[in-house]
Amino acid sequence: MGSNLHPVEQNEIEQSNIDALVEVTANDMREVNSLILSRADSHVEVVPKIALHLIKAGGKRLRPMLTLVSARLFGKETKNQIKYAAAVEFMHNATLLHDDVVDESDMRRGKPAARKIWGNQASVLVGDFLLGQAFMMMVETGSMQALDTLSRAAAIIAEGEVLQLSKAKNLSTSDADYMQIIGAKTATLFEAATRVGAMAGEASQEEQQAMATYGRELGLAFQLVDDVLDYGGARQNLGKNTGDDLREGKMTLPIILALAKTDEQERKIIGNALGNSEEFGNSKASGETFAKVRDIINKYDGLEIATARALQHAQNARDAIDRLPKSELGKILQQLTYYTVSRVR
Amino acid sequence: MGSNLHPVEQNEIEQSNIDALVEVTANDMREVNSLILSRADSHVEVVPKIALHLIKAGGKRLRPMLTLVSARLFGKETKNQIKYAAAVEFMHNATLLHDDVVDESDMRRGKPAARKIWGNQASVLVGDFLLGQAFMMMVETGSMQALDTLSRAAAIIAEGEVLQLSKAKNLSTSDADYMQIIGAKTATLFEAATRVGAMAGEASQEEQQAMATYGRELGLAFQLVDDVLDYGGARQNLGKNTGDDLREGKMTLPIILALAKTDEQERKIIGNALGNSEEFGNSKASGETFAKVRDIINKYDGLEIATARALQHAQNARDAIDRLPKSELGKILQQLTYYTVSRVR
Repeated sequence: MGSNLHPVEQNEIEQSNIDALVEVTANDMREVNSLILSRADSHVEVVPKIALHLIKAGGKRLRPMLTLVSARLFGKETKNQIKYAAAVEFMHNATLLHDDVVDESDMRRGKPAARKIWGNQASVLVGDFLLGQAFMMMVETGSMQALDTLSRAAAIIAEGEVLQLSKAKNLSTSDADYMQIIGAKTATLFEAATRVGAMAGEASQEEQQAMATYGRELGLAFQLVDDVLDYGGARQNLGKNTGDDLREGKMTLPIILALAKTDEQERKIIGNALGNSEEFGNSKASGETFAKVRDIINKYDGLEIATARALQHAQNARDAIDRLPKSELGKILQQLTYYTVSRVR
Repeated sequence: MGSNLHPVEQNEIEQSNIDALVEVTANDMREVNSLILSRADSHVEVVPKIALHLIKAGGKRLRPMLTLVSARLFGKETKNQIKYAAAVEFMHNATLLHDDVVDESDMRRGKPAARKIWGNQASVLVGDFLLGQAFMMMVETGSMQALDTLSRAAAIIAEGEVLQLSKAKNLSTSDADYMQIIGAKTATLFEAATRVGAMAGEASQEEQQAMATYGRELGLAFQLVDDVLDYGGARQNLGKNTGDDLREGKMTLPIILALAKTDEQERKIIGNALGNSEEFGNSKASGETFAKVRDIINKYDGLEIATARALQHAQNARDAIDRLPKSELGKILQQLTYYTVSRVR
């Protein structure tokens, strides 16, 4: 999408960053991080090794920060948000450990995936451990409402991952299928993160709903952007993970949009490339196959249209915050939506 | 262990069966089974397929029956035990799906393992789904106490599985390591099953503790027996799964006991056989390697001593029931301990 299309928004995007969010949650995040370290510990040596290999590799810890800000937004002083935030991050990391096994990934957060060092088996089991620990932390808060949100999220996320798996390499996967998949596998945890945060802040039902909508819409924007970036983004910046989705046979929106318009020959090229890792050779991002598919996607504006949809969901997220009284924290959450979509430019 | 060692107990064992337990829980189990069917359902087609492939393959459903009897024992009428029982069975099946991936098993309950039909990926994810559904059912009961028991169990079970994995093929694994592993991976869920059952029956703290002890001790006996049966049992009945533990490199008590007494050459034979699936060829149970290892175990009474330990834990389980007022249901639970260990004869 050219920068001439939304000049005002483009301007806001370029000013956006995640620093304000990091700063405003810094104190609470120190508590969250120390809780994470202590709850990833175990008398079984390899458990904290694997858990902390992944957790310490970084990642922005966006989800726990969202929980903390969502709690703070409603001004009440409780300590539940620390446990909620750590539980949300544990659920996220459990998912990543299992995803890497499912996707047969070699790298995660710029380091070798846990499964490459300790094997698939331990990755599956330590994921299970983190999920159990997440629920234990939730139980400690005594909030049945929050447990309801997060147990439901755990089931929905897994369902979404299975749906994604069952649609792999399936050329008739629809736009609606895709939205269902990313709604379940990604947006559900963002939504749960902001909702339990709002609960910790003792927000009203309506306020909780606004925060849940914000989380969900931000999550949709986030995943759409990720999926566009996997084809190099609108500006065709090829990063180290470019091409992963194509190689894994994942039916993401850019491909789905293109397939709705391709001729028979183009359809065949895409069909042959999807999930066919041999076609990619060693240099997966720059391979000829990847370039061909990307050209087809671009011919039919797949990346532009997917980017526009991400921008729309980012807008929906900002609208949800607009339903709340104006505040500095609300503004930070709105800025975050620009940051999320700015990655694609 | 020869039948001459404990003539009275042997007599009781031969009279024992699981029928009384099945009969007394039959009505409740119908409700549990219908709840299981409805909660294994999903709009994602492959989810119920995989879940029900495993769940419908049978298995005795010992754990949910234990939950139901434990509730009934204290006479109060609540309906929570139905959800607890289904949740416990879901947790068990989630563990089996993940275990089969971890152990690379081909068969489960006499049918091809789910991972052989739908792949490791879907097995991991559907396991996650079942765990999420288990927690959702627990949340619906509104009992934070039961949630505490089961979330703790989920983490401990995973930890136990990781410990087992990290000790695989490790010849210096100790008896204490083994007891820690089976205490975590098996006895914890038996203990949780009886404890949440007692909670549903509104048992007192002491009664809950007695039931938890019963479950834990029964679980230890159950796993010890399983591990003896994997070497053909005291009577050397070679079944279809005989030799699995040796092939998978699992350090179970019969091997550990033998290793404490073997000479250097015998130790080498065991070391080479553990986790060395090529040694087993196609006919794993009757292979020469397996026979050699079994002979070494028998030379040092590995199966007899492990069986004696199983009998001791079965006795501990009966003692726990003796701390409660005498009842017909209590007697059924005590008979069950004979049934559990009778499998080894």
